[in-house]
Amino acid sequence: MLDAYRLDEKKKVSLESYDPEDTSGFTGKEEIEESFAKLKEQLEDIQERLYASKKNGVLVLFQGMDCSGKDGVVKKVLSGLNPQGFRAESFKRPTDDEAAHDFLWRTHKVTPPKGYFVSFNRSYYEDVLITRVHGLIDKDVATRRLKNIQQFEKMLADNGTVLIKIFLHISPDFQLKKIQERMENPEKLWKFDPSDLEERRHWDAYVKAYEAAFKATATKTNPWYIVPANHRWFRDYLVLKIIVSTLSKLKLEYPKAAFDPADYKTTEE
Amino acid sequence: MLDAYRLDEKKKVSLESYDPEDTSGFTGKEEIEESFAKLKEQLEDIQERLYASKKNGVLVLFQGMDCSGKDGVVKKVLSGLNPQGFRAESFKRPTDDEAAHDFLWRTHKVTPPKGYFVSFNRSYYEDVLITRVHGLIDKDVATRRLKNIQQFEKMLADNGTVLIKIFLHISPDFQLKKIQERMENPEKLWKFDPSDLEERRHWDAYVKAYEAAFKATATKTNPWYIVPANHRWFRDYLVLKIIVSTLSKLKLEYPKAAFDPADYKTTEE
Repeated sequence: MLDAYRLDEKKKVSLESYDPEDTSGFTGKEEIEESFAKLKEQLEDIQERLYASKKNGVLVLFQGMDCSGKDGVVKKVLSGLNPQGFRAESFKRPTDDEAAHDFLWRTHKVTPPKGYFVSFNRSYYEDVLITRVHGLIDKDVATRRLKNIQQFEKMLADNGTVLIKIFLHISPDFQLKKIQERMENPEKLWKFDPSDLEERRHWDAYVKAYEAAFKATATKTNPWYIVPANHRWFRDYLVLKIIVSTLSKLKLEYPKAAFDPADYKTTEE
Repeated sequence: MLDAYRLDEKKKVSLESYDPEDTSGFTGKEEIEESFAKLKEQLEDIQERLYASKKNGVLVLFQGMDCSGKDGVVKKVLSGLNPQGFRAESFKRPTDDEAAHDFLWRTHKVTPPKGYFVSFNRSYYEDVLITRVHGLIDKDVATRRLKNIQQFEKMLADNGTVLIKIFLHISPDFQLKKIQERMENPEKLWKFDPSDLEERRHWDAYVKAYEAAFKATATKTNPWYIVPANHRWFRDYLVLKIIVSTLSKLKLEYPKAAFDPADYKTTEE
């Protein structure tokens, strides 16, 4: 099932060929609820083993248009993780200090150490997306940066970081509906940013920039997943399934003790 | 009910007068389950308001002997929080860089910005506990540091950080039982550290160091809570109740928009 959503080679991708309404044949939340709960338990077990074995770090990176649900998916899918082995990072406009460094600096600093989960809400990909769409960098710089990114991700993998890259795929209509909800609900109004309406006008340019990014950075080791996200229950389910499926392949084991516990049994009371 | 567990003035405390078996009259987990679930919902609502209003940061600090459940309580009580507004920090032996700074430096760096929750598993209090018990600092230095701590905590409060200080109170027998469990369960063996058995010998010195810390730093603004922790269900329940009760008093509101959303309704489609 996951194959349909995976991009794992550097070839031309058309986002149009993916339907944001897709639910892989499921007709509603009830159908996947039980499976979702079971996957969450599996993820908790995986986290414990990951933490104990200290062989890999896990980085789950979310990209998507405004209102595609990057916040929501972290809350719904990852909030069950033990907070002591998990950090949620999100990246806004760079600070002066961040902007004074190379574009991978601020994200590299907060990648997961071995044993830990980290999620990225936006990432270094913004440096080939928003910057490209607004003409802050030209095509050559974007191409060079994409190469930098692909090699950086390879380096992470070589050193034990499992990278899971998720694009949350929504339709322009769905986005507009969400923006309107924010404007109309007093408890959501604080999330509304008038500039989101302005960004919407660049939809097609963003699609092009994303397609270029997928083409340049989708590899067998570090694939992209295009997750249909108009239905939030399916979005959450698919993201969870991708994470559990990827990490199950690591076959994480609890470490054996470097000593014989029996040696200590008699030293007490 | 919380008053019985709160220390909010600088007076002599005897830990012996607190019973680690205490459950405030509740006879089992079933009795508080419903209330626990309701408190968790309240906490989620509070977090959303805290994040939206950006007026306060929340720092929940856990101290306690080895095996008192500092890891467990973070997992059970705080794992429902939205990870995007919450970070769990824990402090081990200082690195060389950390040790080269004043003792408040490494913890101050990771205190919560406004809108965020942070939990501390151990804290700057270790610098008047383990160091004092092992004779790395003398009584004068400990007294001076306690004064530094009290003033640091006052500064945090003055600047909008709500600090909740929790001591997880277990008995020596309970600790031994837990250490033995770790040694006997292959999935828990990795948590077992032979030096825990050595630390146990210093139990009474730790109690004295804790009592000195409570006396020097318990204030109306930044009280300590002594949480009986031999029964984990009661420990979790009480900690959650303390957090929700403290934060409810802030009366956090969603901010009003700085603009009229109606101005934007007509700019689209």
